[in-house]
Amino acid sequence: MAGDLYKQAGVDIDAGNAAVAAMRPAIRATFTPNVLADVGSFGGLYALTDLPGQPVLAASTDGVGTKVKLAAQFGRWTGIGHDIVNHCVNDILVQNARPLFFLDYVAASKLDPTQVASVVTGIAEACRAVGCALLGGETAEMPGVYAEGAFDLVGTVIGLVDRAALLPRTEAMQPGDVLVGLPSSGPHTNGYSLIRRIIADRDPATRLADGATLADALLTPHRCYVGEVDRLQQAGLPLHGMAHITGGGFVENVPRILPSHLAAQLDTAAWRVPPLFGRLATWGNVAWAEAYRVWNMGMGMVLVIPPAALADVRAALQEAVPVGRLVNRGPGAPAIELVNLPENQ
Amino acid sequence: MAGDLYKQAGVDIDAGNAAVAAMRPAIRATFTPNVLADVGSFGGLYALTDLPGQPVLAASTDGVGTKVKLAAQFGRWTGIGHDIVNHCVNDILVQNARPLFFLDYVAASKLDPTQVASVVTGIAEACRAVGCALLGGETAEMPGVYAEGAFDLVGTVIGLVDRAALLPRTEAMQPGDVLVGLPSSGPHTNGYSLIRRIIADRDPATRLADGATLADALLTPHRCYVGEVDRLQQAGLPLHGMAHITGGGFVENVPRILPSHLAAQLDTAAWRVPPLFGRLATWGNVAWAEAYRVWNMGMGMVLVIPPAALADVRAALQEAVPVGRLVNRGPGAPAIELVNLPENQ
Repeated sequence: MAGDLYKQAGVDIDAGNAAVAAMRPAIRATFTPNVLADVGSFGGLYALTDLPGQPVLAASTDGVGTKVKLAAQFGRWTGIGHDIVNHCVNDILVQNARPLFFLDYVAASKLDPTQVASVVTGIAEACRAVGCALLGGETAEMPGVYAEGAFDLVGTVIGLVDRAALLPRTEAMQPGDVLVGLPSSGPHTNGYSLIRRIIADRDPATRLADGATLADALLTPHRCYVGEVDRLQQAGLPLHGMAHITGGGFVENVPRILPSHLAAQLDTAAWRVPPLFGRLATWGNVAWAEAYRVWNMGMGMVLVIPPAALADVRAALQEAVPVGRLVNRGPGAPAIELVNLPENQ
Repeated sequence: MAGDLYKQAGVDIDAGNAAVAAMRPAIRATFTPNVLADVGSFGGLYALTDLPGQPVLAASTDGVGTKVKLAAQFGRWTGIGHDIVNHCVNDILVQNARPLFFLDYVAASKLDPTQVASVVTGIAEACRAVGCALLGGETAEMPGVYAEGAFDLVGTVIGLVDRAALLPRTEAMQPGDVLVGLPSSGPHTNGYSLIRRIIADRDPATRLADGATLADALLTPHRCYVGEVDRLQQAGLPLHGMAHITGGGFVENVPRILPSHLAAQLDTAAWRVPPLFGRLATWGNVAWAEAYRVWNMGMGMVLVIPPAALADVRAALQEAVPVGRLVNRGPGAPAIELVNLPENQ
């Protein structure tokens, strides 16, 4: 199926990118010398240049996409709170920042205080798990703006990182560097408009090959990778960069951290794609190449490490899987190449 | 008309407060020793205790309410960008913080890149005007979550304040302290669900007593008060606190900064309420007492100053108007009293 499948489900990735391009000059005009990161990075970076050591604040604001629609449908309010926190925390983790505090926004046509309390309790649980303060938030009733029974959830995380520790270190990346994947807990918070269209007529109690029901597999909260990255760094292991596999899947997210002369070669045969993704692709007639542009396909975080560190990284993180490597990128060549892709089903 | 009028227009202020109460214990459990402000403050406060001088970050996340619906209806995209920035910036200004950076989130059922670019350009203009970097943002297409043609806009501002300069200084407040109002530019971003119901059958080209059309009066962007407060402080004038008159109007916002033994006595005859509010109250049959709980009634920021400073404050800020004073609060007495309230129309 063509690459406009996601567009047909109501989400136009290219239109989103066009809007970002149009507002870029106005955004740039606000940049003070404190701003380190460019538009399009996972999180924004702001150096507190007046303070000794110039600590850097990392910030990211995001939603959880139309997973909120599914959460509302199944009344899984707490999990969606974990989703938004872990999504945002992972987005600044890739810059090597650790979260200081979080703010949330919950809005609906009509707020149900019990549901809001469940969502915020989930947010608070996920914050507490990473030592992040839930510093503030807002609830809003927006009659006429939200669809009946639907709500949206927006989160913002602010973290801190030493300027010298910032990632990615593109200058350290070399051909031969290994891409190491850390398993996801499901689709996390991406690709849910397409997922909802695909499963519209499916029974949510359907058992997948791993025994989970479809509903459970779809609503498992987004994982947080702070503990894993802490463990690697406490062991003194080198890390050249990390990519959080979010909207745009592998194809859009891994290239975001690479220098222009290097490309990612991803071996799709390196790990077993969890049953959910296979079922979704089959039911939705989604080509494998397209699936890697929408979903994380079982790997929610990709680390870039020097090949010499691979054995130690695997020893420190049992679940780490080498999923590809960096190669030289020729002129006009794509920034990512998927190899061993199965034939379209 | 009764106080449940706002509820009838689709917004239940009390239900919002109930939800906040229910999630409070979970939120508190996330508080590290860095957290200075309590749930319900205008902005959250986070002290960077590991850094010399323990600078404090102030953060606020918010939306602009259903003003977005009116902005969409009239195609006034840029102004709504100013609204969200100035709303958030004023919320941390009352803690004496100045903005460092801002993040935005724009979501709709279907995004129009041109409209998004206009909104974000407005955000960028407002950020630039106060030296605040637009550090990041997110656009999201949420089919099925947002009503057709509607969008929501969420902003987060992060600011910095010296710990010693934090406001309010409740311990400095005394009976006799003067409440000084700074004029608003309209309803700012509050009370728009009720406004939209009231004006549903009115001609947006209707001229108000000050010559403005109804549409223009309703869509004037939220003012920013950073310049005014800077001017006072550069003149070395004392400031005991500031209240940003947002959702909940005078009645809910002024008490937020007062110690429990003091009440605000607001003289509603001290300034001429702009024509728009009078028309809205008349058309909607809104009691004056209720109007002061929904709208800012022409004063968007209230400063608390010692009486001895009043002449200097008025000299520094031509537009400043004494609107009331602090009085002793007896047991069981309300935290705010409106005097000289006109008879219900």
